[in-house]
Amino acid sequence: MILKLSCPDRPGLVATLANFISVSGGNILEMSQFTDPIDEWFFIRIHIDVGDSKSKERSMIDTFESLGRSIDASWEFRSPGAKTCAAILVTKAAHCLQDLLSRTYSGDIPLEVPLILGNRTDLEPIADRYEIPFRHIPVEKGNKEASFDAYREAIDDSGAQLLVLARFMQILPPAFCETYSGRAINIHHSFLPAFIGANPYKQAFQRGVKIIGATAHYVTSNLDAGPIIDQEVARVEHFHTPEDLVRLGRDCECLALSRAVRYHSNDRVIIHGNKTIVFRD
Amino acid sequence: MILKLSCPDRPGLVATLANFISVSGGNILEMSQFTDPIDEWFFIRIHIDVGDSKSKERSMIDTFESLGRSIDASWEFRSPGAKTCAAILVTKAAHCLQDLLSRTYSGDIPLEVPLILGNRTDLEPIADRYEIPFRHIPVEKGNKEASFDAYREAIDDSGAQLLVLARFMQILPPAFCETYSGRAINIHHSFLPAFIGANPYKQAFQRGVKIIGATAHYVTSNLDAGPIIDQEVARVEHFHTPEDLVRLGRDCECLALSRAVRYHSNDRVIIHGNKTIVFRD
Amino acid sequence: MILKLSCPDRPGLVATLANFISVSGGNILEMSQFTDPIDEWFFIRIHIDVGDSKSKERSMIDTFESLGRSIDASWEFRSPGAKTCAAILVTKAAHCLQDLLSRTYSGDIPLEVPLILGNRTDLEPIADRYEIPFRHIPVEKGNKEASFDAYREAIDDSGAQLLVLARFMQILPPAFCETYSGRAINIHHSFLPAFIGANPYKQAFQRGVKIIGATAHYVTSNLDAGPIIDQEVARVEHFHTPEDLVRLGRDCECLALSRAVRYHSNDRVIIHGNKTIVFRD
Amino acid sequence: MILKLSCPDRPGLVATLANFISVSGGNILEMSQFTDPIDEWFFIRIHIDVGDSKSKERSMIDTFESLGRSIDASWEFRSPGAKTCAAILVTKAAHCLQDLLSRTYSGDIPLEVPLILGNRTDLEPIADRYEIPFRHIPVEKGNKEASFDAYREAIDDSGAQLLVLARFMQILPPAFCETYSGRAINIHHSFLPAFIGANPYKQAFQRGVKIIGATAHYVTSNLDAGPIIDQEVARVEHFHTPEDLVRLGRDCECLALSRAVRYHSNDRVIIHGNKTIVFRD
Repeated sequence: MILKLSCPDRPGLVATLANFISVSGGNILEMSQFTDPIDEWFFIRIHIDVGDSKSKERSMIDTFESLGRSIDASWEFRSPGAKTCAAILVTKAAHCLQDLLSRTYSGDIPLEVPLILGNRTDLEPIADRYEIPFRHIPVEKGNKEASFDAYREAIDDSGAQLLVLARFMQILPPAFCETYSGRAINIHHSFLPAFIGANPYKQAFQRGVKIIGATAHYVTSNLDAGPIIDQEVARVEHFHTPEDLVRLGRDCECLALSRAVRYHSNDRVIIHGNKTIVFRD
Repeated sequence: MILKLSCPDRPGLVATLANFISVSGGNILEMSQFTDPIDEWFFIRIHIDVGDSKSKERSMIDTFESLGRSIDASWEFRSPGAKTCAAILVTKAAHCLQDLLSRTYSGDIPLEVPLILGNRTDLEPIADRYEIPFRHIPVEKGNKEASFDAYREAIDDSGAQLLVLARFMQILPPAFCETYSGRAINIHHSFLPAFIGANPYKQAFQRGVKIIGATAHYVTSNLDAGPIIDQEVARVEHFHTPEDLVRLGRDCECLALSRAVRYHSNDRVIIHGNKTIVFRD
Repeated sequence: MILKLSCPDRPGLVATLANFISVSGGNILEMSQFTDPIDEWFFIRIHIDVGDSKSKERSMIDTFESLGRSIDASWEFRSPGAKTCAAILVTKAAHCLQDLLSRTYSGDIPLEVPLILGNRTDLEPIADRYEIPFRHIPVEKGNKEASFDAYREAIDDSGAQLLVLARFMQILPPAFCETYSGRAINIHHSFLPAFIGANPYKQAFQRGVKIIGATAHYVTSNLDAGPIIDQEVARVEHFHTPEDLVRLGRDCECLALSRAVRYHSNDRVIIHGNKTIVFRD
Repeated sequence: MILKLSCPDRPGLVATLANFISVSGGNILEMSQFTDPIDEWFFIRIHIDVGDSKSKERSMIDTFESLGRSIDASWEFRSPGAKTCAAILVTKAAHCLQDLLSRTYSGDIPLEVPLILGNRTDLEPIADRYEIPFRHIPVEKGNKEASFDAYREAIDDSGAQLLVLARFMQILPPAFCETYSGRAINIHHSFLPAFIGANPYKQAFQRGVKIIGATAHYVTSNLDAGPIIDQEVARVEHFHTPEDLVRLGRDCECLALSRAVRYHSNDRVIIHGNKTIVFRD
């Protein structure tokens, strides 16, 4: 099992947790720990071997309850092999969707994708190619809330625990962001916090930067300002046109988004305030 | 000789220039060319071999005058071996100064440094170590203009053609920026245009970015907004403190600044509006 | 039109070529030039605008013949918009094939893929997904020459000008390499010349390197020793298992191979001896 | 205190160590752990807060003895603030020496440098500049052993615990390597294991690679084959001459070497067989 936990720092936390695991008959396979010296906050991810016994797993999870509460912790247990069920939201740019599906099918990212949603139908053929249901839900200007209620319903029906916004070109209503807080990942096509908002590659071209980038982050109601999970950059030169930036940026977007989704699905991310602790693999 | 030239684009420019060089008895050793398809502007850098004859050089430069004007060009001829005479402005962070001097003495950057100026005296020992005159000119809050008049006088007396602001922590008066337009290079300790202004590493820490950077740019009166010459980035992780960002950023600053100064000194940069064309080597 | 040309260096080459283009009624849109100072060899790529007239194009190509010969040049004219017809050879690793097809369909690489060939059938479903004919030609140990004759026949029938070996796990017979000299691109899953031969990721793991890579190169009969077109690297840490290296390496392989195929298809590569001149875009 | 420890893996090691620390009145400030799943070996680095009491420190170190032995561990305790005393060996390339001294004086690397040794006198002026004793010990071809006895004597007299070979261009005798096993760091100017041996940049140029690099590793009697601590790479293009590779490589060398020395001095490296576990900061 994977245990992810964060709590206020205090002396003896590692010993307490290690003892608990030992006493419960588990063995630590891998432990990643971090203490934020400024916030005085403790973060840990432990890969615990409890053998094949499901009842031992269950019992460890139950017993942990009172320990967890006594240290004011937030925590989560999950089976390391479990796939994450993710719905993907798209508009018309294909590369991130293609990349995610290709990695899902190669086993690179442990995802199950029950549903692809588009506010346009451009990418339906890609969904068909992978035999994944595609749902077209247009977003109407005057009636955005209702459109997103339809998104929410479709997502919930699909059983998705995670939303991936793979170049979904719609600003989400605050309530929608709230619902999926901590489980919706967006890719922004700039090196945030530079070039917030629309047309970042055009902005980058006009500013004459020599490096462009992309940012994968959790969605919050504060546009482009959610906790960053990963970023990727590429060098550009004076001879690159805005179209070249778009092309070079596509690789950055695919790499940053797929790593972020991978870390999340492997229970390697802990959100703390507006930041992420990422125990990379 | 190195010829750097820019002008409105029109058909036949390469042929015109190549013919001129050929007819004047020169030979093209290296040619880098770029046409901006949006501004319809032509940029070229030509390394011309004219043999050892100084008079042939002189005559080519003189004859070029009418051709240059006929195509509405800005241009510059310079000897490729010539060192650039540069004054370095510092405050108290040593790394960029150390790096520039170390590269100057190894011959990596073709500089001559007749003068180091500081608004504090912290780095005087480094100047001493390299036996370069150090001038302490404090910047007084109430009398900034006068202080910078003193800077200007000292710089002009030193014969410097180029100013390098190696973590000089003072905002320059607009008139001063104007005087050294196109020949003052600053290093900003962030990946511009992110984190403009003070304390960029602290800003980066608070935003939780996963990549930090540094930006070398020409100074303009518009703070942190001048033409970018080069940028450098470094990955950061959740365990990096603000002090770690400062440390990792130092390498970015040294690399971006030294490359920018190198390109400039080797006549490899053409400024066009708020951008640079950099014919890298 | 794109003109790619290389020849022994001599004074006046740029002027000669620029004049030829000017006199033939063409205009230089973009010119990239390089002179190898050691081999004294001249390389140039010129994007020439000749308007819409096919006859003017034809006439320029014909007229160039005698000029080209007079300077002992190798040269090639091609239409900039033309797609390159490429056959892809695969075994069982899907990522490079997926990546190439995804980029082909997004228009990122100007390819047409009439045929995918496999010595196994594992990737036939991907070919089906993209509706590209798949041909299974097993390679028999005792009868390798005959197997590769079958490959050759299938490739020639398909009209392919370029072969892309997208993790094709067979050593090609020398005669086959000879036939496709300069038009077969392979991806080697190591940072060549390190870890030549089989199982490079395992070799890298055992050596304990901190950076791994991938190399796209033209195929020659000298295994893993052909002219390198591009390389890509990724950092690894002590906690990465051999399987992690394989995973991280996949991104390097896709990026290096797709860039190499892109440069080749856009006529941006000139082979010279065992090296490449790559005029990047 | 910093505790670095490695031992055969077994269940309960984290709990055992955490308990020991807790019972001894210490608190874990930071813990980095890694289990090698192939060798079944356990590695850990713990930053322990024991307050200001030197006697408590002493007692913890003494008490640990029997625990350490009982789990067949190798371990080391060190004060986190302690500077590492390092002798630097050089020949004539200045950049790595300059970079190390500049970082030492800025506090970036916690070193004390009591002695610089050269088989030539070229860099004596740099030692003078930093007021560090310089010892010239030529290496005579016929009498290499005796020369290196002189090195050993000088190093031991200086009190150095660490040797840094900052582009020291001499092959060390096996016995010398043995003496300083695990505490001599060399920088090799190639991306090992590519281009082992002499003139790696020339080799890289001839092979036409598109990325070059540098490797910092512990010295062993097996030339260029010791445990790698860090590596750094830079992109090269067709227009880079062998001299350009040397220039671009210098930055790689400085960065890889300084990081390696930094990790070592901060007790962040554990050697295991021919590999390193590096708990980066």
